[in-house]
Amino acid sequence: MHTLDLIKPDGRNLTLYSRNPISAIAQAPSPFADPLGANPHLRWHPLRGEWVTYAAFRQNRTFLPPPEYNPLAVTRDEAAPTELPPGDYEVAVFDNRFPSLSLASHDPPQLSVPTAPAAGHCEVVVFTQDPNAALAKLDMARIELLLQVWADRTRRVQGRGGIQYVLPFENRGAEVGVTLHHPHGQIYSYPFVPPVPARMLAQEAAYYEQHGSSLLCDMARDELESGARLLYRGEHAVAFVPVCARYPYEVWVMPSAPCESFTALSDAQRSDLARALKTVLLKYEGLWQRPFPYLMAWYQAPTDGKPHPETQLHAQFYPPYRTKERLKYLAGTELGAGMFAMDVLPEEKAAELQQVQVSLEGQ
Amino acid sequence: MHTLDLIKPDGRNLTLYSRNPISAIAQAPSPFADPLGANPHLRWHPLRGEWVTYAAFRQNRTFLPPPEYNPLAVTRDEAAPTELPPGDYEVAVFDNRFPSLSLASHDPPQLSVPTAPAAGHCEVVVFTQDPNAALAKLDMARIELLLQVWADRTRRVQGRGGIQYVLPFENRGAEVGVTLHHPHGQIYSYPFVPPVPARMLAQEAAYYEQHGSSLLCDMARDELESGARLLYRGEHAVAFVPVCARYPYEVWVMPSAPCESFTALSDAQRSDLARALKTVLLKYEGLWQRPFPYLMAWYQAPTDGKPHPETQLHAQFYPPYRTKERLKYLAGTELGAGMFAMDVLPEEKAAELQQVQVSLEGQ
Repeated sequence: MHTLDLIKPDGRNLTLYSRNPISAIAQAPSPFADPLGANPHLRWHPLRGEWVTYAAFRQNRTFLPPPEYNPLAVTRDEAAPTELPPGDYEVAVFDNRFPSLSLASHDPPQLSVPTAPAAGHCEVVVFTQDPNAALAKLDMARIELLLQVWADRTRRVQGRGGIQYVLPFENRGAEVGVTLHHPHGQIYSYPFVPPVPARMLAQEAAYYEQHGSSLLCDMARDELESGARLLYRGEHAVAFVPVCARYPYEVWVMPSAPCESFTALSDAQRSDLARALKTVLLKYEGLWQRPFPYLMAWYQAPTDGKPHPETQLHAQFYPPYRTKERLKYLAGTELGAGMFAMDVLPEEKAAELQQVQVSLEGQ
Repeated sequence: MHTLDLIKPDGRNLTLYSRNPISAIAQAPSPFADPLGANPHLRWHPLRGEWVTYAAFRQNRTFLPPPEYNPLAVTRDEAAPTELPPGDYEVAVFDNRFPSLSLASHDPPQLSVPTAPAAGHCEVVVFTQDPNAALAKLDMARIELLLQVWADRTRRVQGRGGIQYVLPFENRGAEVGVTLHHPHGQIYSYPFVPPVPARMLAQEAAYYEQHGSSLLCDMARDELESGARLLYRGEHAVAFVPVCARYPYEVWVMPSAPCESFTALSDAQRSDLARALKTVLLKYEGLWQRPFPYLMAWYQAPTDGKPHPETQLHAQFYPPYRTKERLKYLAGTELGAGMFAMDVLPEEKAAELQQVQVSLEGQ
């Protein structure tokens, strides 16, 4: 993997990634001329026992721009700079111009609840220079490169200190509120372990304590044995609809042997994980022969420098549809109570996805 | 308050409520001729440490029916029965035909995770016989009656045993997935305290232990003192945008003095709570001069028969809009990490709502 680090005129970082050497690039563009003034802050929610972040400028962020302007495309006209330069790179990562978390944040307001600087980091990951591609359409080598990029970002943030958790994710589709359709994801790096991974880690730690093995690896083993909800069975990776799915088309993807983070993946694991990921994505695209929206979140060990044998690197997909025509809305019981109600069985949805034939030949 | 209890032909319960005596009604109608066969089950989500409920028949539930058929309207034609009979009642509560939880559930499947009968209860609460009304448009006496109905349902469920938590809520508007526009809410009664109220109760208990007072009452006192986010200040009730709002137009409504549940409300508290609730609803409707969608959830003490001085009856409103034109989507950081990111300050949204003038004169 080759990298090239650049600084944008407004001070933001840009890193270009490729499997091949990257030619020198004189300048990193930015659509924004003025310097970055992000100063988000955290407020403590005493009733839920969690932090909420406030970045008041974000209302004006880029939203469904006209088709002639795509800030994630390569800059073609210097008078209308985008976020990315022309060049022979494959994947690009740059600091979000409108971050919910910023390591430069300072002086939070004094309020009736505790406050703190929102001292994290928000990055945008552009998967390809092709604005009309999709993660599912990228070749296997590109998906493997992306897994390496996520490892590199995790490693860099870990080295910086102050960050406890790194979450790469992709919001895909207008149905989940995506404002830019160029294939891209984001990485949020948090100054604390946020509530959802914190809960998972506590559950995994209790299981590890009791059984001496990884909860997720044991769940994967159960799925491999049963086959009822299995979508991919490889030498080193597995994908399935979880038996306790909260979304109709929820899928988990992971290495089948213990592996706590992107940085711990072996070459063989990374290669098979890319195959598992691409298989799931192609099944999603193939299900209704149209782009399939989802939230994809990748969970890994906290970046606290300690070993975490209890946890397992894995992706969770939360697609918003419950049938081809109907969205699943999170409402009273999901958002109000935190208990998810499903009107289909995971086995039925798994069968639908199992029936979608995909081929990775020549990919 | 007067009540009349009836049984539908398919075995479901219907209770009619009014401030005045209700004339005898011979028969409770049902749109469904076949007996109820609901048998939802729970599966344990070992990674999140929570129950998920599965009710596989629910895909076929009534969805945006043509305007000529409204199952929540009063039956006018015996050949096309709705859920409600004609009569001189004001509010009606009946068992959900498509329940996510049912006290009749039995024999859950054997799976690789723990399972259990989904032994709770799901009810529909119809606020008025007028299909074109809205909670905001109902007069004060009707809203007070509704608060009494919620108390009566809580009391009845508590007497039945096996139920740990009663959550009345309203999903309002197509934006939050509502399938029927006739003004109505729901009540979910859970066989356990679900994750969100469980977390709140734990936070409240820790606060009560440390301070000897109610966290929410102390937060309300702070809001009354500051005034920056205050929407209603009455003799017995208060409404405000919380300092730690997770949704742009989030509002909390509660009695200002300790009161742990609907059943503990005094007449004076109930009356002022109705005024606070109506004030908030009218501000929402007035903000953009159009129907305002929201999720409204009412939190109260668990129905375990024990005193809960640490907790406070209150409503939380989660509206889906962040501006007049833009929805707030829950995506990567909210659903994936559990950290909410706000692009406006609660003080700014509170100011917008404060500027909406409402009058309760003659209501």
